[in-house]
Amino acid sequence: MALLKSFVDVSPDSHFPIQNLPYGVFKPESNSTPRPGVAIGDLVLDLSVISEAGLLDGPILKNADCFLQPNLNKFLAMGRPAWKEARSTLQRLLSSNEPTLRDNDVLRRKSFCEMNKVEMVLPMVIGDYTDFFASMHHAKNCGLMFRGPQNAINPNWFRLPIAYHGRASSIVISGTDIIRPRGQSHPQGDSAPYFGPSKKLDFELEMAAVVGPGNELGKPIDVNNAADHIFGLVLMNDWSARDIQAWEYVPLGPFLGKSFGTTVSPWIVTLDALEPFGCQAPKQYPPPLPYLAEKESVNYDISLEVQLKPSGKDDSSVITKSNFQNLYWTITQQLAHHTVNGCNLRPGDLLGTGTISGPEPDSYGCLLELTWNGQKPLSLNGTSQTFLQDGDQLTFSGVCKGDGYNVGFGTCTGKIVPSLP
Amino acid sequence: MALLKSFVDVSPDSHFPIQNLPYGVFKPESNSTPRPGVAIGDLVLDLSVISEAGLLDGPILKNADCFLQPNLNKFLAMGRPAWKEARSTLQRLLSSNEPTLRDNDVLRRKSFCEMNKVEMVLPMVIGDYTDFFASMHHAKNCGLMFRGPQNAINPNWFRLPIAYHGRASSIVISGTDIIRPRGQSHPQGDSAPYFGPSKKLDFELEMAAVVGPGNELGKPIDVNNAADHIFGLVLMNDWSARDIQAWEYVPLGPFLGKSFGTTVSPWIVTLDALEPFGCQAPKQYPPPLPYLAEKESVNYDISLEVQLKPSGKDDSSVITKSNFQNLYWTITQQLAHHTVNGCNLRPGDLLGTGTISGPEPDSYGCLLELTWNGQKPLSLNGTSQTFLQDGDQLTFSGVCKGDGYNVGFGTCTGKIVPSLP
Ligand SMILES: [Ca+2]
Ligand SMILES: [Ca+2]
Ligand SMILES: [Mg+2]
Ligand SMILES: [Mg+2]
Ligand code: NI
Repeated sequence: MALLKSFVDVSPDSHFPIQNLPYGVFKPESNSTPRPGVAIGDLVLDLSVISEAGLLDGPILKNADCFLQPNLNKFLAMGRPAWKEARSTLQRLLSSNEPTLRDNDVLRRKSFCEMNKVEMVLPMVIGDYTDFFASMHHAKNCGLMFRGPQNAINPNWFRLPIAYHGRASSIVISGTDIIRPRGQSHPQGDSAPYFGPSKKLDFELEMAAVVGPGNELGKPIDVNNAADHIFGLVLMNDWSARDIQAWEYVPLGPFLGKSFGTTVSPWIVTLDALEPFGCQAPKQYPPPLPYLAEKESVNYDISLEVQLKPSGKDDSSVITKSNFQNLYWTITQQLAHHTVNGCNLRPGDLLGTGTISGPEPDSYGCLLELTWNGQKPLSLNGTSQTFLQDGDQLTFSGVCKGDGYNVGFGTCTGKIVPSLP
Repeated sequence: MALLKSFVDVSPDSHFPIQNLPYGVFKPESNSTPRPGVAIGDLVLDLSVISEAGLLDGPILKNADCFLQPNLNKFLAMGRPAWKEARSTLQRLLSSNEPTLRDNDVLRRKSFCEMNKVEMVLPMVIGDYTDFFASMHHAKNCGLMFRGPQNAINPNWFRLPIAYHGRASSIVISGTDIIRPRGQSHPQGDSAPYFGPSKKLDFELEMAAVVGPGNELGKPIDVNNAADHIFGLVLMNDWSARDIQAWEYVPLGPFLGKSFGTTVSPWIVTLDALEPFGCQAPKQYPPPLPYLAEKESVNYDISLEVQLKPSGKDDSSVITKSNFQNLYWTITQQLAHHTVNGCNLRPGDLLGTGTISGPEPDSYGCLLELTWNGQKPLSLNGTSQTFLQDGDQLTFSGVCKGDGYNVGFGTCTGKIVPSLP
C-alpha cells in the first residue's frame, strides 16, 4: 500500500505527518479564544472551524460540540469510538486525493494557521496529576545513591507501580519559564536546615498519559480495558529540586521539591497514532498479581532526547538519549493499579511515567543520575555542569521512526530564571 | 452588649446561630440546580434568592453574581473584603430587629429551606487537595509504632509542616457511603504480597482549610498575610487503609491507601466566625525559620468528637475527644510553607491539617493510635473493636462553645460498605 499523503506539504523529517495528527489547544492570536487543533506539518488545523463547517460528519461527532470548547476534556470523555471516528475523518479530509478542503480556498484559509504564529495552551483541564516511578534503572540509581547497594530497590517496587499524587495547579505548557524554587534544605548530620534558592535544581525526562473517560468512584478499571481510558501521550519535564526534596520527603513523599512547576508538551499523540510502534514490554519477575497481569503487555518504541543549552551559550548539547521502552511497568498497568482501590479517574487527568532512565549512563533521565548527585560533572563543549544554572534551557524531544515518516511529539522546553528577591 | 439574635428560632444548643452563618451549597430538591446557602438554626438561607432580590446591597456584592453559581469558587476568589461584607449584610438581614426579610412573608418563604429536606453537595470545586501532618502527638505515635522510640519523630518534622498531595477526585460530601478499598498488602518479612479488601480500614480525625484568592505561580504568600487566603474550615475524615498504606508508601508516600475516599462536612465555618475562639498556638522549639515565623500564631479552641455506630447496633459510642488546639503547626504556617517554593494555590483548594491527636490515649485521632495498631481493641458497649467493619458508621462533630451560643461545624459522617465482588 502506498504511504498515506496529505495535500499539506510535510517535510520528511517532520514530527507531524498525516500519520500522526496529534491534538492540542491553541490561540490563533494572543487575544483569541483557545480552541482545539491538530498538527499537520508546519500548520495547525483549527477543529472549531472544521466542526462548524460540518465536515466532522460521522455518526458520533456530527452534532457534537466537543471542538467548540476551550479544552479537550469533552472530547476526552467521549472515548475511543469518538477518537477513532475523528482520526479517520481528519485523515480523509487532509489526504492528497480528497478535494473538500484541498480545493476550497476560502475554507482552507480559515482552517489552517502557521504553527510558529499560534500560542499553544494546556490542552486540558487537569483534575488530578499522578506521577509514577516505573523505570527500574531510575529506581535502582536513586536507591544506590541514597541507600547503598544492599537494598537499592525497595521490595514493593517489583510488586506494584509505585506512584505519588503530584500538584495539578503548577503544570505549565512548554515554553513557560521556570522560576528557581526557594525552600528548606539540610546540609548534613545534626546541623540546622537553611533557607534559600535550590542549589540542586534538576529535570526529569518523563512522558505522561492523558486519561479519557475514566471511572466512577468504587469501580476499578480492568487492566485489559485500561487502554480504552488512555487518549494519548505527551512529553513531561518533572522539574525537581533535589535538596528540598531530600530534606522533606520522609515519610510522606515529595512535595515542595516538585510542586513549583511541571512542563508538558503541547501536542497529545494518540495511542492510535502510536499503534505501529507498539512493542513487547519487559518480562516481569516476580509475575504480577492477577489484577496487574495483562493479556498483552505493550510498550512503545519512542526515542527520547534531552538537549541542554547552558546560560549564555549559543549551542545546545545532547545530554541524554533514552527510550519509552525502558519502562518496566506499562501505562495500562499504571492506570489499572491507580483505580484498583476504587479511586476515580476523570477525563484530562495526567499520569506521569516517572523518570525514563535506560541501563547505560548516557541514557539516564535526570542530572541526579547523569552527574551521580553532582559528583561527576558533565562536560559540555568544554564547560562543566552539575545541576541547573539560571538561564539554562532544556529541550526534550520524542519521536517514533516509521518507514518513510515519523510520529513525533515535537518538543517540551523550559528555561530556568532566578528566584525572586 | 446584648447577644445578637435572629428572628429565626435557633435552639441554644444549635451549631448554627446568627454568630456562625457557615456557607454551603445545596439542592432544595434532588433535581434542582445547586446554589450557595448559609445555615441558620434548622434552616438554610438560599443566597441565590437573596442575591436576586437585591438584598446583598454592599458596594462589593451589589452587582456580583458569586451566589448565582453552583459552587462557592467565585465568592472564595473575591477575598476577605467580600467575605466581611457578606457576613455583615447577612447578620443584619437575619437579626431580630430587621424587618426586610422578617416581615416579608413571600420572600421569606422563597428564601428559607428546612435543612433536613435539602441535599448538600460539595461546596467548591477542589483543584488540589493537600494533607498536612501537623499534630505532634500523631507524628510521635505513628513513629513509635513503626520506627521505635529512638527516632519516633523524624528531625525534619520540627522544622517544617510535612505534607503530601492528596487525591482531589475522591473527596465526597458527608453522608456518602465509603466502599472498602481493595489492594495489595504485605504480611511480613519475605513473604509475597496478597490482594484483597483492606483488613485495616481506619478513619483520621482532621479539619481542613478552604483556600480563598490564592497566589500566582512563583509568588509566595507571606505567613503574616496567610489568613487572608483562608476562607474557613470544615471537618474532614481522611479514610485510610493501613495495610495498603504500609506496603506502598516507601519511598513516595501514601497513595492508594488514601485515595479511595475523603469525606468533608458540608458547612464551611468562616475564620471570621471563629475569631472569638482564637487562642495562642503552641510554642515552637526549635524556633521556625524566618519564613515560618508569625507575628501572631493562632489556633482555635474547637472541641472535636468521634462517634462510632458499629454495624447492626443502635447505639453510638464516643471513641475519642480531641481539639483543634492540638496542632503544632498553624494553618497559616501550613499555607505559607505550601507556597514558599512558588507553588500556586487556587480558590477552593483544600488543606487538611492531618490527624488531630491529643496527648492522652482518649484523644487520639484514628484507630491506628486508639488500638495501637490493633493490639489494644476498644471496648464498646461490651463488644470489642479494632479496625472498621462493614456497616460501621462514623460521625465527627466539632464545636466552639461561646458565651450563650455555639459556633459549630455540624457533623461529618460516613458508613463503610463492602468491597464489590
Ligand atoms: Ca518524577
Ligand atoms: Ca491524613
Ligand atoms: Mg514537577
Ligand atoms: Mg483520604
Ligand atoms: Ni489534584
